[in-house]
Amino acid sequence: MIGRTSKCESKNIFLHAHHSLTDNFKMTVEKNIHDKLGIITFDQILSMKTDSVIALAHPNIAFIKYWGNRDEALRLPANGSLSMNLGALSTTTSVEFRSDLKQDDLIIDNVNAPPAALQRVSSFLDILRERAQKQHLKAIVISENNFPMGAGIASSASAFAALAASASRALGLELDEGELSRLARRGSGSACRSIPAGFVEWQMGRADEDSYAHSIAPAEHWDLVDLIAIVNDTHKEVGSSAGHALAGSSPLQASRVADCPRRMQLCRQAILKKDFSTFAEIVELDSHLMHAVMMTSSPALLYWEPATIAILKKIRDARLQGLQACCTVDAGPNVHVLCLAQDANQVERLLQTIPDVATIYRSPAGGGVQVLA
Amino acid sequence: MIGRTSKCESKNIFLHAHHSLTDNFKMTVEKNIHDKLGIITFDQILSMKTDSVIALAHPNIAFIKYWGNRDEALRLPANGSLSMNLGALSTTTSVEFRSDLKQDDLIIDNVNAPPAALQRVSSFLDILRERAQKQHLKAIVISENNFPMGAGIASSASAFAALAASASRALGLELDEGELSRLARRGSGSACRSIPAGFVEWQMGRADEDSYAHSIAPAEHWDLVDLIAIVNDTHKEVGSSAGHALAGSSPLQASRVADCPRRMQLCRQAILKKDFSTFAEIVELDSHLMHAVMMTSSPALLYWEPATIAILKKIRDARLQGLQACCTVDAGPNVHVLCLAQDANQVERLLQTIPDVATIYRSPAGGGVQVLA
Repeated sequence: MIGRTSKCESKNIFLHAHHSLTDNFKMTVEKNIHDKLGIITFDQILSMKTDSVIALAHPNIAFIKYWGNRDEALRLPANGSLSMNLGALSTTTSVEFRSDLKQDDLIIDNVNAPPAALQRVSSFLDILRERAQKQHLKAIVISENNFPMGAGIASSASAFAALAASASRALGLELDEGELSRLARRGSGSACRSIPAGFVEWQMGRADEDSYAHSIAPAEHWDLVDLIAIVNDTHKEVGSSAGHALAGSSPLQASRVADCPRRMQLCRQAILKKDFSTFAEIVELDSHLMHAVMMTSSPALLYWEPATIAILKKIRDARLQGLQACCTVDAGPNVHVLCLAQDANQVERLLQTIPDVATIYRSPAGGGVQVLA
Repeated sequence: MIGRTSKCESKNIFLHAHHSLTDNFKMTVEKNIHDKLGIITFDQILSMKTDSVIALAHPNIAFIKYWGNRDEALRLPANGSLSMNLGALSTTTSVEFRSDLKQDDLIIDNVNAPPAALQRVSSFLDILRERAQKQHLKAIVISENNFPMGAGIASSASAFAALAASASRALGLELDEGELSRLARRGSGSACRSIPAGFVEWQMGRADEDSYAHSIAPAEHWDLVDLIAIVNDTHKEVGSSAGHALAGSSPLQASRVADCPRRMQLCRQAILKKDFSTFAEIVELDSHLMHAVMMTSSPALLYWEPATIAILKKIRDARLQGLQACCTVDAGPNVHVLCLAQDANQVERLLQTIPDVATIYRSPAGGGVQVLA
């Protein structure tokens, strides 16, 4: 379900967004609009008529992982996946299309984005501009995360979900949830899962038309908590976009993919029934399957750090002792420890005893993308 | 090639063995024979006429791993494997069959072996007794390793290779290398690879008759060194015998096995051509493939410890910088770092910089099993 806070009639979009936005984000927009257009204060911005739209989306944590594409350009995945939106973390993105700009501009967390990031966003916006027949417009995109990008929490899912929602609305396109999810997928595969709310399934589909995500249960369905243990890492492996392209080089990817419908079914049912034991087993298996493929691709991708193993073993041992907690690891060394809300303090204390756990973020399930104004 | 130091005519076997044996082993034999038979000194033992035979075998490190059986009872492997004997490490085993004993006795490193180990050895000896038609004899088996058993270096390969050679000779069976290798396989799969010398291939075969190992190159062929980094580990996973039985529960085992002939071919050629770069890539891939299967079996086997990852990454990074070294990990957390003799000191210094590396053993390639006396 997409939050449908409507864009204000006057197009004075910041007015309606005023109460939803953090002061920090207002300052970011103010500074950057000033840099681009010479406007000085937020109040001056408020008095402008613009076509800007602001949207907010959460990152998501996959229980059944997406790894590898059967079509790289369209980001059609090798297998279906299942995830939960992380309500406590979010990306807020403002998009304004203008006819007086020579090229797109992209500011992320108050800094001009590097050329590669701008190129990726421009290519994504091209899809929308073509669809809206507004190829002459260029965009100012201002995006901000409420979590540090360098900390190793993937921000591309929430970023492209928020961008898909804000940019499509700014161009006057009226897309339903499925269309928005398909669109977000083109920017970053897992972004399609940040469009619907709560617990989300991305059906791999047969083609672009039917490869999108839908909610299988709202955020309130199950009081799962994700404790994200950020570990000190010294090595940087390749990013997940480049990594996806290597999946097929592993002798194990075909088996991981072939077994996926079974895991999807088990995981979906475990979520619907709130069966934590089954959930824990299948989530850890699926995470290990993805890292098995990663570490056996050419070149090998070894995302785990020593602290990753320490956490995996500590949580497994605690589960054998009766604690309801399990782990999943994305394309990085950080460990997402999943547990019920009632056990979250206990699990967090356990994680704090592990050396090299630098920070722990906590998030319950969250809603879908919202157009704020 | 089996060392064929012949058993002395007088059956006074310790006399000929005298110079080959360590003082420690002599004391072990003396003490244990005393405990069993009331004989007091080594000189008294030397004056006895016995049917004892002593054999020595080295453990081996697999470059292409053995994991999973297609026949558990016969230990017919799911796939072929390739290894190198570790000349610096050895197990020395004395076997004497007697008609005046009620049951087999097993002393390992000067301690009575636990019942499970004795049972495994007795079952193995039963195969030989039946073959020799000497079911009425029971054995005193005294075995000693020149490396600590608790350190995590698998001793079952050298143990069953030495036992196969000594026990078969003691029963008067004249087995050629292939027959001895087949026999050792029944005690511990990888033991069949400790029978031939140097660089060894275990052909999976079609049945018991043709599933044995042969040398593809003598120890002198290539001056490879194995630096075994023993890491401090607090967790104990299941032993490899139990682990083999779990291999089939991983969705990845079939793919690992199916791809094995390709890896065998690449690794065999790399050894024969002394092509370290190809060797390094295929050895690390094969190790990762085995651990991929382990960690995705039910229950999951996570043999790696934090230090394991630290070593894997340190060596990979060094190789990217030009150092010729690579890693392989058996069913435990220790890392076998393979390099050329000329680089061994440099690699050892690198390993010493890693916290939680407790001890480093060094071994060149070694010969096959030897009957010492």
